[in-house]
Amino acid sequence: MGYENDLILRAARGETVERTPVWIMRQAGRILPEYRAIRQSLSGFKELVETPELAAEVTIQPVDILGVDAAIIFSDILVVPEAMGLEYQMIENKGPYFEKTIQTLADLEKINVPDVDDTLHYVMEAIKVTKKELNNRVPLIGFAGAPWTIFSYMIEGQGSKTFSKAKKMLYTNKQLSHQLLEKIAQTTIKYLKAQIKAGADIVQIFDSWAGILSYEQYLEFGMKYVSMICNAINEVPVTVFAKGAYFARKEMGELNCNTIGLDWNMDIQKSRELIGKDKTLQGNLDPCMLYSDFDTIKLETSKMLSSFGPNRHIANLGHGVYPDMHPDKVRCFVDTVKEYKS
Amino acid sequence: MGYENDLILRAARGETVERTPVWIMRQAGRILPEYRAIRQSLSGFKELVETPELAAEVTIQPVDILGVDAAIIFSDILVVPEAMGLEYQMIENKGPYFEKTIQTLADLEKINVPDVDDTLHYVMEAIKVTKKELNNRVPLIGFAGAPWTIFSYMIEGQGSKTFSKAKKMLYTNKQLSHQLLEKIAQTTIKYLKAQIKAGADIVQIFDSWAGILSYEQYLEFGMKYVSMICNAINEVPVTVFAKGAYFARKEMGELNCNTIGLDWNMDIQKSRELIGKDKTLQGNLDPCMLYSDFDTIKLETSKMLSSFGPNRHIANLGHGVYPDMHPDKVRCFVDTVKEYKS
Repeated sequence: MGYENDLILRAARGETVERTPVWIMRQAGRILPEYRAIRQSLSGFKELVETPELAAEVTIQPVDILGVDAAIIFSDILVVPEAMGLEYQMIENKGPYFEKTIQTLADLEKINVPDVDDTLHYVMEAIKVTKKELNNRVPLIGFAGAPWTIFSYMIEGQGSKTFSKAKKMLYTNKQLSHQLLEKIAQTTIKYLKAQIKAGADIVQIFDSWAGILSYEQYLEFGMKYVSMICNAINEVPVTVFAKGAYFARKEMGELNCNTIGLDWNMDIQKSRELIGKDKTLQGNLDPCMLYSDFDTIKLETSKMLSSFGPNRHIANLGHGVYPDMHPDKVRCFVDTVKEYKS
Repeated sequence: MGYENDLILRAARGETVERTPVWIMRQAGRILPEYRAIRQSLSGFKELVETPELAAEVTIQPVDILGVDAAIIFSDILVVPEAMGLEYQMIENKGPYFEKTIQTLADLEKINVPDVDDTLHYVMEAIKVTKKELNNRVPLIGFAGAPWTIFSYMIEGQGSKTFSKAKKMLYTNKQLSHQLLEKIAQTTIKYLKAQIKAGADIVQIFDSWAGILSYEQYLEFGMKYVSMICNAINEVPVTVFAKGAYFARKEMGELNCNTIGLDWNMDIQKSRELIGKDKTLQGNLDPCMLYSDFDTIKLETSKMLSSFGPNRHIANLGHGVYPDMHPDKVRCFVDTVKEYKS
C-alpha cells in the first residue's frame, strides 16, 4: 500500500504531516475543459457515471492537472436511491428528477436493501480501474450521501429550496421515516464497504441538507444514521461533511469518524473548540473566493491555513467548486496550500 | 394612537406584556383560502401587490381569521429594485425574474435612488387603506428587503441555490458592489420612512440570503447597510431578520434596532447570550412543525415560549409559513401562544 503521497491518510489519522494535504469537493467533474470534452461526447451525465473507464479517466484528471493530494471517484450520491429501486434522471440545467418517490408504507415496502455488488457494480469497477491507473500516486476517496440527504430526494423526487415535503414526512410519519432511513443506512454501509473492498482508501459521507433540519430533528433523523454508518466502517478513515449543521458540531466531535468537514460559514476556532482535538478538520475556504484575483486567493488561503494550524487539517473549499470557476484559480488555491510555510 | 391591542409594540420596546404577542411571517398571502380566492380572480401576483384596496384586504384577513396580534402589509421585497429601474415578473411556480440586471458600472449608473412616493405610491396607498380599515385593532408592520438580499436579485436576475454570481461581484468588484448597496440602502431608508409616514407602526428588514455569505463578507457587505438603515429609522421599532446569519448574532446585538428575528436553527439560549439582554427576540418555531398533529404543535409551541421567557419575545415561526399548511394548524399555533400561562 505504499503511496508516493499518503498525506491525506496521515492527516486523517492525526499523524504529523510535512505539509497540509489538499483536495477539492467536486474536483472530478465540473471545472476542467478536459472533463467537459469527455462529458460532451456522451449522451448525458449518467452515461459517464456508469462507464467505468470514463469515470476513472475524469477521476484522475484533477490529480494530473490540478496536483491535488487525493482523487475522489467520479459518481453521484443518487446512485444509492436508484439501486434501491427509484430510478433518477439528471436533467440538464435543472438537476435530478425521480419519477417514483416514497409517500406511503406501500411505497416503502417495495424498497429493499439491494445487492450493491450487482446494482452498483459500475462504481466498484470504476474504482478498480482508477486504482490501477493511479498506480499508488495518491489515495482514492470513496463517498456516499448521508441517509437524511438521500431520504430527502426519495420523498421530494427532486431538489427543493425548503425540503418541506421531506420534513413533513419526519413530522407526520416517524415510523415510515425511521424505517426508510434505516434501509438507506444499511444500503450505504454495504455500499461503502464494497467501495473500500474495490480500493477506496478513505470515504466521505455528504449530508448536503443537514442544515435544513432543526437541532432536535437532526439528532433524531440525521446524526443517528450517520453515526450508524461511522460505527460500521472501520477499514479506512471516514469523513463526515454535514453542510449547514453548525448547531450539531459538538455531537459531530463524538462521531466514530476521523474527519469533520466544515462549510465556509463555520468559524475555524469555534469549530475546533466544539468538535474537540481528536478529529481532523477539513475545509473551508468560501468557494466564491476563487472568483477573486490570484493575490487575494493566496492571501486568504494562507490565512485559512494559519487558522487551522499545521496538523489535523485537510485543506478544501467549504462546498463543492462551482462549474464556472477558472482552473487556474483552483490551481492557485492548491499551489498555495502546497507551498505554504507555517 | 391608542390600539385595542398594542402587545407587539410594547414587546418590541422591551416593556412588560400580559402575554407574548404573535404573528406569522408570510401570513398575508399563501395559506388562507380567502386569500387564494382573491389572488385567483386576478391576472397575477403583481396585480394584487399594486392594487391598494385588494392588498389591504389580504393584509387584514389574517387578523380576522387567524387572530394574530399584528398585520403585515401585503407586498414584496422586489418592489424596491423595480422602483430603482429593474422591472420584475413573478413567474408562477418558479419565482421572480428580472430581464435587466446589474453587471457593469454602466448598468449601475442607470440606477437611481427613486422618488418612492411616486414609484411606490401603491404601497403607501395600501398602507393608508389598511390603517383605516384596521381601525386601530392591531398595529401594522411595514417591511423591506435588506440591501444584500436585494443586491443578490439585481445581480442574479432570479433566485439561485448558491447566489454565486452575486458573491462573485462582491469578490471581483468591491467598488461597484458598495456603490450599488449604498443606493439600495438609501432607497430603502426613504421607502421605510414613507411607509411609516403612511401609517406603518413597526418595520422589519428581511435579509433572506444573509446565510450565504461568510462572516467577513456579511459584516462588510450585509450588516454594514442594515446598520445604516437601523441608524436612520428612529420613528418606530425596527426588526432585523437575517436568515442563516447565526455567525453574526453578536454583531446583531449591537444594531440600533429593537428586535432580532431568529430562524429555527438558532438555539434560543445561545442566541440570547450572543445578542444580549437589550433586544427583543422574534421567532422561531420550525415552520414544518405545523405539519404535525395539534397536540404536537401545542407541546412544541409551549416549549418554545418557555425557552424564550415571558418578556422581550414576539412569537413567530423561524421562516415564512409554507403555502400548503392548513390554516387550522396555523391557528393552533396562534391560539397556543395566546393561551399560554408561564
